[in-house]
Amino acid sequence: LSTRGSGTVADLGERGAIADIRARVLPSPPWLLAGIGDDAAVAAPERGALDVFTTDALVEGVHFDLTSSTAADVGWKALAVNLSDLAAMGATPRLALLSLVLPATFATHDFHALVDGFLALAREARVTLAGGNIARSPGPLIVDVTAIGSVRPRRVLYRSGARAGDELYVTGTIGAASAGLMYSKESKDSKKLKALQPAEGRDTPIEAAAQPADPLLAACVARQRRPIPRVRVGVLLGRNRAASACMDLSDGLADALVQVTEASGVGATVDARALPIDAGALHWFAAHGADPIQAALAGGEDYELLIAVPRRGRRRLETVRQQARGVALTRIGEVTREPGVRILRDGAVESLPRGFVHF
Amino acid sequence: LSTRGSGTVADLGERGAIADIRARVLPSPPWLLAGIGDDAAVAAPERGALDVFTTDALVEGVHFDLTSSTAADVGWKALAVNLSDLAAMGATPRLALLSLVLPATFATHDFHALVDGFLALAREARVTLAGGNIARSPGPLIVDVTAIGSVRPRRVLYRSGARAGDELYVTGTIGAASAGLMYSKESKDSKKLKALQPAEGRDTPIEAAAQPADPLLAACVARQRRPIPRVRVGVLLGRNRAASACMDLSDGLADALVQVTEASGVGATVDARALPIDAGALHWFAAHGADPIQAALAGGEDYELLIAVPRRGRRRLETVRQQARGVALTRIGEVTREPGVRILRDGAVESLPRGFVHF
Repeated sequence: LSTRGSGTVADLGERGAIADIRARVLPSPPWLLAGIGDDAAVAAPERGALDVFTTDALVEGVHFDLTSSTAADVGWKALAVNLSDLAAMGATPRLALLSLVLPATFATHDFHALVDGFLALAREARVTLAGGNIARSPGPLIVDVTAIGSVRPRRVLYRSGARAGDELYVTGTIGAASAGLMYSKESKDSKKLKALQPAEGRDTPIEAAAQPADPLLAACVARQRRPIPRVRVGVLLGRNRAASACMDLSDGLADALVQVTEASGVGATVDARALPIDAGALHWFAAHGADPIQAALAGGEDYELLIAVPRRGRRRLETVRQQARGVALTRIGEVTREPGVRILRDGAVESLPRGFVHF
Repeated sequence: LSTRGSGTVADLGERGAIADIRARVLPSPPWLLAGIGDDAAVAAPERGALDVFTTDALVEGVHFDLTSSTAADVGWKALAVNLSDLAAMGATPRLALLSLVLPATFATHDFHALVDGFLALAREARVTLAGGNIARSPGPLIVDVTAIGSVRPRRVLYRSGARAGDELYVTGTIGAASAGLMYSKESKDSKKLKALQPAEGRDTPIEAAAQPADPLLAACVARQRRPIPRVRVGVLLGRNRAASACMDLSDGLADALVQVTEASGVGATVDARALPIDAGALHWFAAHGADPIQAALAGGEDYELLIAVPRRGRRRLETVRQQARGVALTRIGEVTREPGVRILRDGAVESLPRGFVHF
């Protein structure tokens, strides 16, 4: 479907936009009895399972801008941040609803790219787009997603289950998205200077998002633009009953440590030297005079999982590790009776940096 | 909780805003295992029922403005439009997720009013606020809601079930919201003129939305600002298996007639003289030189239901009527084999006006 240069979503109209989405969606699974096109979606719940619901929005100018992310990135990420919340509950994703608030000037090819980015992750995660809404925006582009999953009753991972003596783990690496975002902001600033010079037939900014030559840094930029939610690890943690508590790192590890310990009525001690800081991020932070540990603790958007594991659950965690297809699970500290979060570095105690502030 | 004049949502912060919402929510029903405060909401599905999901957003400057609606109206209506979609499927509402995109300058007392307006309808409709999201807006206020309901498998009302020979009904009256909106727009324009004169200690415009002295017109304004979704009638239609198809009138009766007939592969003939046009709207349209029938067909936001009833379902519809607590059910025409929608007035055939255009 090549519709490049064919106008804006205002030309397409609501019906045209919905028809274009329907044309891109895979055939419905048998348990979806009504999808796009009726007043609401109708689905048979998973037998014997609980329903899990979450919603999260990406707002242009707050969570992304279309000079450093493509429209496809935004579509992908809007689903990813919601699947990350389902993963943190141990839930298997099933359905999503896509609520778009689109400026009338939004280009049709960007609209298609956004939907295709969303559907690319949906296919990978076996999520069915079951419905949504399209409204006009007098300002920013907003992509609001509701994701719906299922989980068996005794496999749910709550924030509030951590107990003193549990070990704390994180998946993958941290700091990468934060370094990637800093790179994108820097390269955007230098682009602004370039824009003062005569144009050289470049593509539109929305497609020309800067890519660093350094592959480690490029991986950081990719992580920030197209995070990969830890769906499989979340499901494995629930299935193996390996975790007492879990939360995703949307607003950074420091924030997640505070949230999980407060919800559980406990504290935590974290070994700074054990933190799995991303290699590209380490280089970037060092080159920019930032303390890598503080930066990695504060940096949001890694969409990894923070996991509390009871000592008797260690062998279960090994089972998860074996089935996790190479996703690292790093022990970073432990849950304490004493409230508060303490970062231990070289025998000294450090305070926590603040996470992402939404207002 | 009086917080009048105590600042903006930026002062409140995300955590403060979420805490204020939690303080307003009723205790969770036993089937809600995790609500506000975890990564996602967890609910046990209704036994033996299907899940029904819908999402719809209200955007400042497109669907409302805060000179003619209060913040409480906006909160109420954001839930109402979603419950209307559930009603159109025959579903009983259970849960809602509230996704807010708030300008940093949004006043704390308006934020509280918005949430209270939402929760006022939630209480009436027995809907539990189970979660949501708060993001900052660099532009308009956006209230995006996902509503989740349940319905037994053989009671679902689809758009696509209408068959030639079925009778068409609408609930309540039509045209009211459209007349109410026209009144609000007119009075807003006259307010602008007033604003050029010295202030007279009036309250802020957000609280001072104009109310007409004529009670019939005041009812129209109220319908537009605080629509009452036909939740009970939708459930009764499903429970009594009285309808072959159903859709709500969010974008007007003309639009609903087109959508239902197209989805069902049929046509319709509508008797213009049978349309239950609201009395206040009739006066308003007449006084403004508009043809009441065309205006009532085109006018959106009445959130009534269009229902197709098989002839053998007439007695079942009588049962619904008896249990509908005074909500009118008016026969307006019938489903035809011949495609297209024909409006018959005094023996002549008229074409359909266009409904609300979203872009």
